[in-house]
Amino acid sequence: MVVASPKTTFSGRRCLVTGGGGFIGSALIERLLKEGAYVSGFGRTSAVPSAPNLTWVHGSFEDPMTLVRACEGQDYVFHLLNSSTPESATLQPVGDIIGNVVPTVQLLEACRLTEVENFVFASSGGTVYGISPQIPIPETAPIAPISAYGVSKATIEKYIAVFGHIHGLKYKILRVSNPYGPGQSPHKKQGVVAALMYKALAGEPIEIWGDGNTVRDYIYIDDLAEAFVKIGLYNGPEKIFNVGSGIGQSVNDIVNQIKTLLSQPDMPITYKPSRKVDVPVNILDMSRVEKCIDWKPRVTMPVGLELTRFWLENFAIKHSKA
Amino acid sequence: MVVASPKTTFSGRRCLVTGGGGFIGSALIERLLKEGAYVSGFGRTSAVPSAPNLTWVHGSFEDPMTLVRACEGQDYVFHLLNSSTPESATLQPVGDIIGNVVPTVQLLEACRLTEVENFVFASSGGTVYGISPQIPIPETAPIAPISAYGVSKATIEKYIAVFGHIHGLKYKILRVSNPYGPGQSPHKKQGVVAALMYKALAGEPIEIWGDGNTVRDYIYIDDLAEAFVKIGLYNGPEKIFNVGSGIGQSVNDIVNQIKTLLSQPDMPITYKPSRKVDVPVNILDMSRVEKCIDWKPRVTMPVGLELTRFWLENFAIKHSKA
Repeated sequence: MVVASPKTTFSGRRCLVTGGGGFIGSALIERLLKEGAYVSGFGRTSAVPSAPNLTWVHGSFEDPMTLVRACEGQDYVFHLLNSSTPESATLQPVGDIIGNVVPTVQLLEACRLTEVENFVFASSGGTVYGISPQIPIPETAPIAPISAYGVSKATIEKYIAVFGHIHGLKYKILRVSNPYGPGQSPHKKQGVVAALMYKALAGEPIEIWGDGNTVRDYIYIDDLAEAFVKIGLYNGPEKIFNVGSGIGQSVNDIVNQIKTLLSQPDMPITYKPSRKVDVPVNILDMSRVEKCIDWKPRVTMPVGLELTRFWLENFAIKHSKA
Repeated sequence: MVVASPKTTFSGRRCLVTGGGGFIGSALIERLLKEGAYVSGFGRTSAVPSAPNLTWVHGSFEDPMTLVRACEGQDYVFHLLNSSTPESATLQPVGDIIGNVVPTVQLLEACRLTEVENFVFASSGGTVYGISPQIPIPETAPIAPISAYGVSKATIEKYIAVFGHIHGLKYKILRVSNPYGPGQSPHKKQGVVAALMYKALAGEPIEIWGDGNTVRDYIYIDDLAEAFVKIGLYNGPEKIFNVGSGIGQSVNDIVNQIKTLLSQPDMPITYKPSRKVDVPVNILDMSRVEKCIDWKPRVTMPVGLELTRFWLENFAIKHSKA
């Protein structure tokens, strides 16, 4: 008997990346192309330079037939598309369900119909656990989100697991911490590092929700893209992985590092009232990924901040002023 | 300082019961009326005889404005309405989200807008846990549904908790096991006791999914209605309660009891292939409710089956033949 050994590379494999025009999606597409994959991007716009093995699917994420067409012939679906932020989901939880949960279930149905074998989902390590009794937070901690954003991410996880159970879909879920780095827009409601750095560079006043002691786990974008690739190829029994640095840093820590980096010790900061949807501390326990996957984040925060600064100065700020 | 003591009765309190025309809803409305509450039923039809303190809200559960109107002036909302079954949710998970999760979030928004203080939700103890590593299953067990039905129930639980966290909504969640008893339609896709007893009484062949060894926890309808009232009035720190008997019985156990009760030892039974959405064993750990609530199920299965038989013979079968 000949047993086909599990593939250990993406070379020649066909991968659909939803949200391919976003911060994480763009980085993942570039990485998959480097690995030799044939990539289809799905999303409003592509931020990736055109390449021989890259195609783009235009269409609405809310249209099931487009999803079926996009899934046809794919070996992998990386589902990164997300149309809400923690803030918008809280204000409009129904819009979040209609715009994210429902189309994701349609995407899962499309995968089933077109016999896509592998599904990889970008979940939120920062919100699905809520206020965890354990810090750092292992994957086995209770799922107790305190924001609608966290609920919709957790719900999508559960639907994926049901499709795995009933229809045999192979899946991996990455509970991603706070990604940062080149490519992250400083103008969105997500991504504190880009926003802080941009304001500091532009000489604009910095605003912080709460007292700045909110602790988060940050992961550099290239490290994250590599984690998607490595976890996507993993064939062991685990399905869900925390993906972060395992290191907690407060917003004030980040601000202080930016101050030092930019030699701006007197940067003006305004503290605004804290928000109920923000958990005080979120640090991910990285034991599982360390045990199962040959991956470790390599870019430390000082280096990552330097690279972010370089990108913002040379691309984002120039573009926004152009 | 005078501290208002928590109310210990529903007398004079205004209660909305969604799904008031259903099996559990009807029983709860009758019970609340006996307790002296003013009850508004919300649902397609009322199965409860008209009473001075009972009004009925007609309208679609999917229309947010109707929900706002229904919530106005209520002290309590008991949310029992559910338009799917485990079977339909699996076939049409999107329909289940649109028909149940979305309107429930609208209902929560309506409660917030109209300042409803208390929200009580009928969740599913039989599906939210999935295949639990612990039997009997405590409320702290992982939420790992293996059916879309279980996912939507678990999702609703999480949204309720977010509204509790952000908006201060007081809530209780009852993870109900398999209810049975008078009032349960034998013709629906849910309610194995009514279906089996009806077929046995009607002399129709009995069909069982799987080998009949699937173990479930059954709760008699009047005991369940009492649990809603007692848990609704509870003011302690717990929010989520298993509500069942804590006793596991297989489908074959139920069939054997029906055989004995009806003196039909040779009832013909057809075994059909098992379904992937059915967990093999579900028995709820009742420790929390025993500790916190002055309630215990009182009707044993033999008595409950006798009462179910009486109701089916005198009401359901006569009606269906009329």
